[in-house]
Amino acid sequence: MIKTIYFEENTVMLLDQSQLPEKLAYERCSSSLQVAEAINKLKVRGAPLIGVTAAFGLAMGVNNYSGSAAGLDEYFRETKKLLASTRPTAVNLFWALERMDKIYQANRHEEPDRIAQVLLDEAEKMYEEDIQINRAIGEYGQEVVDLGSNVMTICNAGALATCGYGTALGVIRSAAGRGKLKRVWACETRPVLQGARLTVWELLQDHIPVSLITDSMAGYTMKLGQIDVVIVGADRIAANGDVANKIGTFSLAVLANYNSIPFYVAAPLSTVDLSIETGALIPIEERHQDEVRQISGNYLTVPEVEVFNPAFDVTPHDLISGIITERGIIRPSYVDGLKQVKTNTRG
Amino acid sequence: MIKTIYFEENTVMLLDQSQLPEKLAYERCSSSLQVAEAINKLKVRGAPLIGVTAAFGLAMGVNNYSGSAAGLDEYFRETKKLLASTRPTAVNLFWALERMDKIYQANRHEEPDRIAQVLLDEAEKMYEEDIQINRAIGEYGQEVVDLGSNVMTICNAGALATCGYGTALGVIRSAAGRGKLKRVWACETRPVLQGARLTVWELLQDHIPVSLITDSMAGYTMKLGQIDVVIVGADRIAANGDVANKIGTFSLAVLANYNSIPFYVAAPLSTVDLSIETGALIPIEERHQDEVRQISGNYLTVPEVEVFNPAFDVTPHDLISGIITERGIIRPSYVDGLKQVKTNTRG
Repeated sequence: MIKTIYFEENTVMLLDQSQLPEKLAYERCSSSLQVAEAINKLKVRGAPLIGVTAAFGLAMGVNNYSGSAAGLDEYFRETKKLLASTRPTAVNLFWALERMDKIYQANRHEEPDRIAQVLLDEAEKMYEEDIQINRAIGEYGQEVVDLGSNVMTICNAGALATCGYGTALGVIRSAAGRGKLKRVWACETRPVLQGARLTVWELLQDHIPVSLITDSMAGYTMKLGQIDVVIVGADRIAANGDVANKIGTFSLAVLANYNSIPFYVAAPLSTVDLSIETGALIPIEERHQDEVRQISGNYLTVPEVEVFNPAFDVTPHDLISGIITERGIIRPSYVDGLKQVKTNTRG
Repeated sequence: MIKTIYFEENTVMLLDQSQLPEKLAYERCSSSLQVAEAINKLKVRGAPLIGVTAAFGLAMGVNNYSGSAAGLDEYFRETKKLLASTRPTAVNLFWALERMDKIYQANRHEEPDRIAQVLLDEAEKMYEEDIQINRAIGEYGQEVVDLGSNVMTICNAGALATCGYGTALGVIRSAAGRGKLKRVWACETRPVLQGARLTVWELLQDHIPVSLITDSMAGYTMKLGQIDVVIVGADRIAANGDVANKIGTFSLAVLANYNSIPFYVAAPLSTVDLSIETGALIPIEERHQDEVRQISGNYLTVPEVEVFNPAFDVTPHDLISGIITERGIIRPSYVDGLKQVKTNTRG
C-alpha cells in the first residue's frame, strides 16, 4: 500500500497528490509552513488525511524548535494557528489540532525533546488509528452494497484521502473483497478532478472495475438504471446530520433521491461536529477562480470571466439514507444517533 | 455580428468553434465530406446550426457535381445520407435535409446549374429564417425573465449554436435588451466545455454579465437562492414534451425542480419531432471516450480507464415549465400544444 504520509529524518513526507496519476512523487516538508502550504495547495487533501497531516506538521514544528523553553507555548500556539488557517471546511483539521493541543498541554512541563517525541508519537497513533477506523467503516458499510452492485461516488474518499484504505472507497474495497461489487462509477469531480485523477488511479491499482463519467452525466447514468447505491465521504457533519462534502455531492443526493437510489455518507466520527447544529452554519471554502478557468495552466475560457468556485456544498440530512462510521451505520433521525455514538467515543 | 456560416466562391465557410475562444478562424469546406466532418468533429455544433450547415453542404455538393445528369439523383441521395450520418440526436439535421430533399424533388428535371442555385437559395433562406425564428423565441421568452433575474443555462444555445441571436441565449439577449437581466450563470458543460468556451465568450462580447461555474456547482448555486430561472436549448423534443439536450440538462431540471425554480426550454419548432412519442425513443449519441479522458490532448486521468460518454440526456416533460418557440410559449400538457403549433407551421 502506498503511504500518503510518513515522518522520516525530521521531515514530513507527503505524497504529492496534485501530480497524480502522472507522477508518484513525495513532497519533503521540513517546516510547519511547508506542511501548511501543502495542505492549502491541495498537495494533500481529504478530510481525514488533512487532520493527520496537520498533526505531523505541528509535532515536527515542536521537534524543530530551537528557541527558549519559555517561548515554546507561544510557538506552539502560532504553529497550530498557522496549520488551522489552511482550509476552513474539513473539521478533522481542527479536531486533530485540538487533540495535539491536549497532549501538548499535558506534557508542556517536560523537556522540549520529550514533548516533541510525545507529539510525534500521538501523530503516529492518529495515523494508525485512521487506518483501523477506515477498516471498521468498510466492514460496517459493505452491508449497504448488495451482490452485483454498481456504486457511484464523487471526489476521492479513498486511501489517498486518508492514511490508508479510505472511507467511501473503504466501503467499496470491503464490498469488492466480498465479491459483491460489480463496478464503481466515478464522477470526475470538477474543478480539481480528484475523481478522474485519484479515485480512478487508486481503484485501478487495486483492480477494482471503474468507469469514469463527468459530473454532468451522474443523473442520466442513474436514470438508465446503472446505479444501485451512492456512497460519498464527508468534510464535516453537523449535529443534525447535514453533510458538507466536495462540491457536487448535494446534486448527487438530489439526483439519487429523484431516482430512488440510496445515498450513504462514509466518514470517521472525527468528521462529526456536534458544536454545529445544521449544515447552514458550516463554513464553505471558496477557492481561486483559476481552478475553474484553467486546467494545467491552460485557460478553458475567457481569462477575465467571473467565476464562482465553492469547494464544498451541504447535503441536507433528509436526503441521506445513512451515515457509515467506525461504530456502525447511523440512520435517521441523526440528532440522537450522532450524539450518542459521538459521546461514547474519544473520536 | 459574427457569422457562424456563409457561402462564398463555391465554398462553405464555417466558424471553427472548436478553436474558440482562443482563435476566431473559419474552416473552408469545399466538399460535402468536409462539411460532414466538420459537423462530426464539433467544429460546428448546436442543433439549429447543424441543420443549416447540412443544408449548405448538400447544396454545395450539387453545385460541385460534374457527373452525368442521370447520376445526379443517386449522388444527391448519397450526399444526403453522408450528411445525415454525422450526428444522431439533433433532429434539426434530418429536418433540414428533408426540406432540401423536397426542393430537390420539385426541381430535379431542371438544368443541374439551376438545381444547384435553387438549393443554395433554400439554404440561404433557412439561414435567414433561423435568425428571425430566434428573434421571435427571444421576444416570447423574455416574458419568463422577471426584472433583476439571474438566469442559469448549460452548453451554448446561443448565436454560435444557430445562424445568429440564439435560442436560450436569444431569450437572455432579449431580456437583457429590456434591462431585466441581472446575470447569467453559465455551466461549463463538460466534457466539451461549450459553456466555458462559447457561452462565456459570446455573452462577454455582448457585455452581458456572466459567471462561470462547473456543472457540479449548479445545485449548490440554486440552493443559495442565486438563480431565478433556468433556460436551456434542445436537440430534439418528443411529441409528449420530453427534451433531449446536452448531457447535464436532466440534472439541472431535477435540481431546479427540487429548488422550486422554473425550468424552460427554448427551441425552434424544427426541433420538435412529432414522429417520436416519448424521450425514451430519442437516439442518444455516445462519443469517443477521450473526450472525457483528455483536455487539449492532455490526459486528465489514467489513459486506460473505461469511460461512459453520452453527449445528451433526456429531461422528462413533467420537469419542464414551458417550451419557448417562435410561435409562443407552450405550457403543459405538451401533447396537444406541440401538435397544434407544429401542424400550423411549415416548421
